[in-house]
Amino acid sequence: MTSVNSPADPAVKALFFDVFGTLVDWRTSIAREAEAILHPQGIRLDWAGFADAWRAEYQPGMEEVRSGRIPFSKLDVLHRHNLERFLPRLGVNGLSEETLHALTLAWHRLDAWPEVPTALARLKTQFIIAPASNGNISLMVDLARRNNFPWDAILGAEVARDFKPKPGVYLSACAALDLVPAQCMMVAAHSNDLQAAAACGLRTAHIARPDEHGTGTGERAPTVPVDYAAENLAALADRLAV
Amino acid sequence: MTSVNSPADPAVKALFFDVFGTLVDWRTSIAREAEAILHPQGIRLDWAGFADAWRAEYQPGMEEVRSGRIPFSKLDVLHRHNLERFLPRLGVNGLSEETLHALTLAWHRLDAWPEVPTALARLKTQFIIAPASNGNISLMVDLARRNNFPWDAILGAEVARDFKPKPGVYLSACAALDLVPAQCMMVAAHSNDLQAAAACGLRTAHIARPDEHGTGTGERAPTVPVDYAAENLAALADRLAV
Repeated sequence: MTSVNSPADPAVKALFFDVFGTLVDWRTSIAREAEAILHPQGIRLDWAGFADAWRAEYQPGMEEVRSGRIPFSKLDVLHRHNLERFLPRLGVNGLSEETLHALTLAWHRLDAWPEVPTALARLKTQFIIAPASNGNISLMVDLARRNNFPWDAILGAEVARDFKPKPGVYLSACAALDLVPAQCMMVAAHSNDLQAAAACGLRTAHIARPDEHGTGTGERAPTVPVDYAAENLAALADRLAV
Repeated sequence: MTSVNSPADPAVKALFFDVFGTLVDWRTSIAREAEAILHPQGIRLDWAGFADAWRAEYQPGMEEVRSGRIPFSKLDVLHRHNLERFLPRLGVNGLSEETLHALTLAWHRLDAWPEVPTALARLKTQFIIAPASNGNISLMVDLARRNNFPWDAILGAEVARDFKPKPGVYLSACAALDLVPAQCMMVAAHSNDLQAAAACGLRTAHIARPDEHGTGTGERAPTVPVDYAAENLAALADRLAV
């Protein structure tokens, strides 16, 4: 645990959280869900590779919206579109509408990294907590109910009608709570997310998720200046003295 | 407890709640908060009358937005505007900016009717629960933290950028959860709210709050057809078998 600043700044009133990768292990969960749906149909794949292939379409899909080439769409819609893009490359064709829909909703059934639910409950005692994710509201609600994330509100892309790292997502979350950016802290496992939040005036906390894309593939430490860098969410709660 | 329909329809997935009057006792709370702020400044008023005078400006203030005469504003902004409208009529003039601001935020410090927190926790075990209030997000967050309302999400006017009973408020809440209106039930102590929700295709539940505006002044029963009518929120939870 390192910190650029001294102990918890009392001016911070709200914590905003990235979700995919930071709070939930999307890769293991999507691999499990895809296998559960497709294996009974006789499909044999590298299921972690399936998750990686889907995630590889994530940023290009959102970039269509960020650039203004297509109107805002919920992430569920982009996930479905992305799924149909990469499936043929894996040699998977002819899935039923029902199967495609079930796969798309696999993103609503992701499991949290182990320390997250308890750490969020601790952080809620001192801060307003909300996701500032690119996931849509129903997806965030389902992940919260599955994993006991005790959100005060669901903020993020669907409220802003744009995707991170566009400034409007961070700024709309602050505005929804009547806070200025300096009263808000973005918590994420991805330096580009924190860099964009910092550019909007938010405080930042990095969470190490070294195994996000498979063992040793995630960010062990931030590559940009941050206010806090913690090995996990419990360590951040320790550091913020809650 | 009466019901037009037979027991809890399994098709209902989400409950949306009116908040002012239905879940919280705005009148007693505003009277208490106003007295706490203004009595030390030597001001003597009928504090319940103060609350009533403020609430009397509520619908006219929102109507400016609903009619399109002014752009959407958070309810906090309308509350402040309305405050400055009625204070002179009560003979109160010359309050400081700080006092006006503190009074406006009194709406963030309302207390729940006694059975509400426990009943909401019960309802959450079976349904997605969210406010569909005309209050803004920060106001809803503060009331939830004060009263332990375990919301899944904060929906309502600020997300829809319009005020009830405009259809967009109900329909945007359904859309945020990827539900059709028939899968959603509006819960409110006000028949006009339920009538508007029903016109959008939502199911409806009326909660009796006979003392909302003072003893015997509120709706003891709905004046429009509803799916459920309950004496309080615990009775609705009983009826929905949670």
